[in-house]
Amino acid sequence: MRMFDVIEKKKHGKAMTKEEIQEMIQGYVAGSIPDYQMAAWAMAVYFAGLTDAELGELTLAMADSGERMDLSGIAGIKVDKHSTGGVGDKTTLAIAPIVAACGEKVAKMSGRGLGHTGGTIDKLESIPGYQTEIPLEDFFKNVNTNGLSVVGQSANLAPADKKLYALRDVTNTVDSIPLIAASVMSKKLAAGSDKIVLDVTCGSGAFMKCKEDAVTLAEKMVAIGEHAGKETVALITNMDTPLGENIGNAMEVAEIVALLNGKGKEDLYAVCIYLAKTMLYLAKKEKNPQITEDDCEKMAIEAVENGSALNKLKQMVAAQGGDVSVITDPSKWKKAQYAYEVVAQESGYVTHTDAMQLGIASMVLGAGREKKEDSIDFAAGIQLLKKTGDAVTVGDTLAVLYTEKYDTVVDAEKILREAYTIKKEKPAPEPLILAKVTKDGVQWFGK
Amino acid sequence: MRMFDVIEKKKHGKAMTKEEIQEMIQGYVAGSIPDYQMAAWAMAVYFAGLTDAELGELTLAMADSGERMDLSGIAGIKVDKHSTGGVGDKTTLAIAPIVAACGEKVAKMSGRGLGHTGGTIDKLESIPGYQTEIPLEDFFKNVNTNGLSVVGQSANLAPADKKLYALRDVTNTVDSIPLIAASVMSKKLAAGSDKIVLDVTCGSGAFMKCKEDAVTLAEKMVAIGEHAGKETVALITNMDTPLGENIGNAMEVAEIVALLNGKGKEDLYAVCIYLAKTMLYLAKKEKNPQITEDDCEKMAIEAVENGSALNKLKQMVAAQGGDVSVITDPSKWKKAQYAYEVVAQESGYVTHTDAMQLGIASMVLGAGREKKEDSIDFAAGIQLLKKTGDAVTVGDTLAVLYTEKYDTVVDAEKILREAYTIKKEKPAPEPLILAKVTKDGVQWFGK
Repeated sequence: MRMFDVIEKKKHGKAMTKEEIQEMIQGYVAGSIPDYQMAAWAMAVYFAGLTDAELGELTLAMADSGERMDLSGIAGIKVDKHSTGGVGDKTTLAIAPIVAACGEKVAKMSGRGLGHTGGTIDKLESIPGYQTEIPLEDFFKNVNTNGLSVVGQSANLAPADKKLYALRDVTNTVDSIPLIAASVMSKKLAAGSDKIVLDVTCGSGAFMKCKEDAVTLAEKMVAIGEHAGKETVALITNMDTPLGENIGNAMEVAEIVALLNGKGKEDLYAVCIYLAKTMLYLAKKEKNPQITEDDCEKMAIEAVENGSALNKLKQMVAAQGGDVSVITDPSKWKKAQYAYEVVAQESGYVTHTDAMQLGIASMVLGAGREKKEDSIDFAAGIQLLKKTGDAVTVGDTLAVLYTEKYDTVVDAEKILREAYTIKKEKPAPEPLILAKVTKDGVQWFGK
Repeated sequence: MRMFDVIEKKKHGKAMTKEEIQEMIQGYVAGSIPDYQMAAWAMAVYFAGLTDAELGELTLAMADSGERMDLSGIAGIKVDKHSTGGVGDKTTLAIAPIVAACGEKVAKMSGRGLGHTGGTIDKLESIPGYQTEIPLEDFFKNVNTNGLSVVGQSANLAPADKKLYALRDVTNTVDSIPLIAASVMSKKLAAGSDKIVLDVTCGSGAFMKCKEDAVTLAEKMVAIGEHAGKETVALITNMDTPLGENIGNAMEVAEIVALLNGKGKEDLYAVCIYLAKTMLYLAKKEKNPQITEDDCEKMAIEAVENGSALNKLKQMVAAQGGDVSVITDPSKWKKAQYAYEVVAQESGYVTHTDAMQLGIASMVLGAGREKKEDSIDFAAGIQLLKKTGDAVTVGDTLAVLYTEKYDTVVDAEKILREAYTIKKEKPAPEPLILAKVTKDGVQWFGK
């Protein structure tokens, strides 16, 4: 196989063979295929796409480029969950305990945030003492004992994806839907679970800005999962506005603790329950074919209401060296030095709270990284007191900014004000779950 | 300017600014823009194209990346000529002497062959002693004294093109019409002439296989020339079948000597006269607005018939240290050790003599380079005794193969036989000059 010939095929929209794809990925990781040829290939894929068969083989080759996790030491059906990211996207922290409380195993590897806000691992590290890098045997032991563990990704998980992503990042080939699908799914396949639930976020705060692109990405990821023999379900969720009210690492953990105490914001709660029931259904129908999604939804709600999910969160935190007292008593969280209220300058209804802008404002306050090597201020963030659909009167507090660096407030306030649109008329409510994609097709909600 | 943003523009078909293009080319030559970003950009251009304004600025930036030739030391209007290449493409060797004999100056820098057959510089070096690398002052002196000089390209002529071409060669982005146009024209602009005549070859032995692509390339190159303030005319010439009867370096020089002695093959002669008259018209109409192309054609024919063009060739060869005796007496050429006749195995009419296949056969015999570092056997080549349109009877000699390595003959004969198509019916004659492209548009011939 010559890389030149493979590029020729892609330029003319012809399909690469399985062997060509495998040799390409192996050669790229080994360094025998140079960055400049891979960059030309990636740009050709941006324009010409990949067939489902090519995409399936590409993703398998990337998953096989490093160590594949063997979860056979954990009994039962393991269902993984992945979100394509967003602002204030904290659902994993609630879903993993809920699913574990309902008797299923959650062995999850998560990433750090690269964009405006922290990732799940950053959020967990805001809990004093919580270890995200633990030996594999401890990871297995925690899952077997408590039903759940969330750790950082092992360095050798899909190294081809790591190398290719870094190249795409500098050659402006990140926004190719098939390459995004391969990137996400190569890590999911390598992470070893049996089934996969995908939360494909859609809207201003997400990578996919429109429903059509989000569904296309979801379809491709579902096809990859099924190609690899893993049942995969994708939910398209609304990310025009952040879920819940908090953006910022410790603030988001605290919000999840409130939710698991029965005091969750309605939108966040609804999405968490939906994702949890979808995971539960995939796991439980194998043992119990009569079970329905409604049954699973009831179980998930019950796990929150009876406190068993909160208990699972505490068990996980304790098992990984975290300080459980911040879970038990949220007043123990380290507070940000400055709290600054942004008040409404006009009256009406909030018609839009732009997730992307809010993400940038929270990054300015210290909650996210601008560059990979930046450190995160765990206490920094934004509390949204008014969101899309809420009525406001001049003088009402729209949001509270938290930071350690007071000089960031001017910029953050300016960006936050741009994020809010206030109009005279109340906006029509938008659905939280826009669609569901399985191997059988797309089911649209509220359209 | 960030290369990332420039790639973004090209991906979405937006035009780069002049400043962005200049910074990109300067940065690439200086090494601050890495190959992988340039490769992604080149592939984006392959798919999304370039506007005429972008292409004009890109070409100027490439021309300005090295030293621009200053031909002001040569009096009068200097007209350059460039061919996009083909098999047995020897016209420069006749045209330069004809134009010089008609009183115009030809200061030409040529390249070596990269593909199947030698380039003009390789052909000239088959003349014993001929120096293609001479000091610039000698180049100017020769043009001022004799009216012509053909030398190799200076190393510092458009280095951006050299670097970008090498990258395109390994990233499969050579076949982008705007990038081909920029590559050719950057060297022409840097070479310093006032006006440019382009011979855009079209057919199986050329880079452009179909008339439409050839015209598109011609239009882009004409637009670039005009953008740079240099009148440019392109002729689309037929390269399905090689011109004349000889392929091979010394054999082609000998064929040109025969032509300048009034014994040229009809097709080769017609194309040489057409190109020469076009160059003469561009040069002469500045001093004499009443002159017509027909006047220039008569002058060109007269220069061949009265021997003045042959005399110019001798002057050029002598001025550059070459052995004039091979021009005066072609029997003095070193002969290839082996001559092998390929005879017809069927009767009928030759309906096609495939230029590409004949080029490969001649390379096999030693007349061209497979790799850049290969040496050329100047005496090797093919004499075509039958070409498209000719009647053949079983036993007629189709072609004679010349080589120093007898073991190449088997392969060469096989390829040569594949190049010939013989059918019962006489084919319709094809025009030699397919179209003419100027800033005013396309003029088709024989269509």
